[in-house]
Amino acid sequence: MNHAANLETIKLHQEGAVLFAEISAPPMNLMGQELVRDLAALIQRVESDDLLKVVVFRSADPSYFISHVDVTRIKENRDVAGQATGEPSLALLFRRLSTSRVVSIAQIDGRVRGVGSEFILACDMRFAARETALFGQFEAAFGVIPGAGGAQHLARLMGRARAIEVMLSGTDSDADLAERSGWINRALPARELRDFVNALAHRIAGFPSEGQAVVKERVNAIELVPAEELRTDGKLFLQGVQTPAVRGRIRSALQRGFQTRFAEMDLPEMLTGSADWK
Amino acid sequence: MNHAANLETIKLHQEGAVLFAEISAPPMNLMGQELVRDLAALIQRVESDDLLKVVVFRSADPSYFISHVDVTRIKENRDVAGQATGEPSLALLFRRLSTSRVVSIAQIDGRVRGVGSEFILACDMRFAARETALFGQFEAAFGVIPGAGGAQHLARLMGRARAIEVMLSGTDSDADLAERSGWINRALPARELRDFVNALAHRIAGFPSEGQAVVKERVNAIELVPAEELRTDGKLFLQGVQTPAVRGRIRSALQRGFQTRFAEMDLPEMLTGSADWK
Amino acid sequence: MNHAANLETIKLHQEGAVLFAEISAPPMNLMGQELVRDLAALIQRVESDDLLKVVVFRSADPSYFISHVDVTRIKENRDVAGQATGEPSLALLFRRLSTSRVVSIAQIDGRVRGVGSEFILACDMRFAARETALFGQFEAAFGVIPGAGGAQHLARLMGRARAIEVMLSGTDSDADLAERSGWINRALPARELRDFVNALAHRIAGFPSEGQAVVKERVNAIELVPAEELRTDGKLFLQGVQTPAVRGRIRSALQRGFQTRFAEMDLPEMLTGSADWK
Repeated sequence: MNHAANLETIKLHQEGAVLFAEISAPPMNLMGQELVRDLAALIQRVESDDLLKVVVFRSADPSYFISHVDVTRIKENRDVAGQATGEPSLALLFRRLSTSRVVSIAQIDGRVRGVGSEFILACDMRFAARETALFGQFEAAFGVIPGAGGAQHLARLMGRARAIEVMLSGTDSDADLAERSGWINRALPARELRDFVNALAHRIAGFPSEGQAVVKERVNAIELVPAEELRTDGKLFLQGVQTPAVRGRIRSALQRGFQTRFAEMDLPEMLTGSADWK
Repeated sequence: MNHAANLETIKLHQEGAVLFAEISAPPMNLMGQELVRDLAALIQRVESDDLLKVVVFRSADPSYFISHVDVTRIKENRDVAGQATGEPSLALLFRRLSTSRVVSIAQIDGRVRGVGSEFILACDMRFAARETALFGQFEAAFGVIPGAGGAQHLARLMGRARAIEVMLSGTDSDADLAERSGWINRALPARELRDFVNALAHRIAGFPSEGQAVVKERVNAIELVPAEELRTDGKLFLQGVQTPAVRGRIRSALQRGFQTRFAEMDLPEMLTGSADWK
Repeated sequence: MNHAANLETIKLHQEGAVLFAEISAPPMNLMGQELVRDLAALIQRVESDDLLKVVVFRSADPSYFISHVDVTRIKENRDVAGQATGEPSLALLFRRLSTSRVVSIAQIDGRVRGVGSEFILACDMRFAARETALFGQFEAAFGVIPGAGGAQHLARLMGRARAIEVMLSGTDSDADLAERSGWINRALPARELRDFVNALAHRIAGFPSEGQAVVKERVNAIELVPAEELRTDGKLFLQGVQTPAVRGRIRSALQRGFQTRFAEMDLPEMLTGSADWK
């Protein structure tokens, strides 16, 4: 894989069969056109590089892994994904990580909300820093279903009651709670996380590819979210965000600081209490 | 909703779009005809009140949330449920909470066993007091399957081995164990539980209804227990309780203090060791 | 049941309706022909003894519950299983425990890896010593899927990400981690484990059989792994172990101490780093 390749928002670093992909889309790792384009390019190239066996996703920003989708670019994001995969859907783009022969690991510091959560849920494994990681799937606070599979993943992982709590409350789960509910594989002390993921990635890369492929294939046959369910949620999300009510809530949120780095440090607080949301 | 409405066993208190329903059926919140009738009436009225978005269930008795079904009134309970919903089944009555646009939260102090457990499992979320809540699904100790969906819910939530353990052991799980196994969303310190649930209920009520509806609908499409499975378990339960062996065990249990407030403080102990049960 | 029956690798001890079966196949409780033959005989006899209600599996070796399959005897093991059940499959032999009217409990001290893990996953319940139990499903390190249902059980119990982690990492989980991920019912202090399981087994044996049967039947209808999926994994495993690449890895591992008691005390370490495995 050509490391000098033109990825604007992802820095690559390869060690043997392990590729480290560091997300860097200042000021807050919003999922906008550039990051979607780069993720799509990366996923395609990883697949076609026979020397790669594991890809690790990290963030250059200790406070934000991926914040959420850029709500002013929803249609453009889908179009960019569609150019890469033939179908305008972030969920189906992410799903290629789940079905790939390459093993994907998310190493999570900071906030992972909305489509960021849906991205890590499509990775094969996810580990998070106990002190800093925060998880949110808050789309229902705007009146819509998560657009890229969040409801599908969370309901299967944590059961009906916890998935509903997460989505309807619009609050953050810290890493310990996310571990207890199954959102992530495990929470680790922040200072140990990087070494743990490095060692795991290299260990897996040292084992034979065919074992990884058959395990993923058979586990996917049981637990992978069907593409059709992702398409349904995607359509419901798109219908929702085009209604005047949701557009009004988005405008109102943008005026209150939504999509700014500082205000989203405590997004649950920001989402609270505006009477016109009801 | 008319708060003065004639609910004998449930005290209502409304704050904005949140309705608090406090169960009070002394001496031990048995699920008898009165409580079934009142729950059925409440569920129907909540549904039809467009101003309501969240209903919180609490108990007036700190030792019993809902103890279990009144075993001397199984047929009458079903008939009362049938008058309300058209089908003589507590499971299908409770299931209306799961499918309702209104969000339901159980705030649990004290014992929740048998049909009480099945009631909270049909609510959208459930939070319990760490020091006082106890959970049991003990029907198998009498020789029958839980009658209102317990096996269905528990197997899906906690997996095969833990569901079998809970049902065959006839012991209680405390709130911490219930959290670890997925029976409840979370255990909280008893002194914080009420404020936590209040805040969560009002927070959810502040968000748009259409988001809540679409999230519940899509999560239900994945994880809601099919009505047909509830009917099957209900039939098996009813067949079981009509056999001489089970009727004998019920009589024997009633003689030993079953369905009395004091003896059921430690129901697992009471269930132990009577040789004629085998 | 005739306790003097000729089981070479399993010592039997009966107390009332509870049968204790202590696995003793020195030097490390490998799953070879003798143990397969004895497990098959035991499972058949337990089924046919109407006085038995619960069977508890223990190990005579505090360091190994069941280590894993004897990789030099894979075909012979299947044939022995086939003689007992009509189908040459360990997975389908173990599955008879899951579908039996008799309740099965695994009491786990020491290491449980590979087919040992698959055996306990087919039991109705499993409890482990916090200080000594270790769990591994490491077949993918040799390039193959687990052969007797491991992927099926783990994916359903712990979800996609944790099942993939367990199988691709080839590391051990200790009992606390195994509890958190759902691999076992619960971890207990080693000194309390035996008494806990004894009491649970006798308690269950004191309750009526028909309740146990109907609960297992209804839970199995939801969560039991379909036999067809076990057959598919079994075929994939067998195909894998017959390839030159996997045979070479097995030979290489045997030379490095695989299947010796001392070297497998830290099997994950032993699996690491041999360049020819890639």
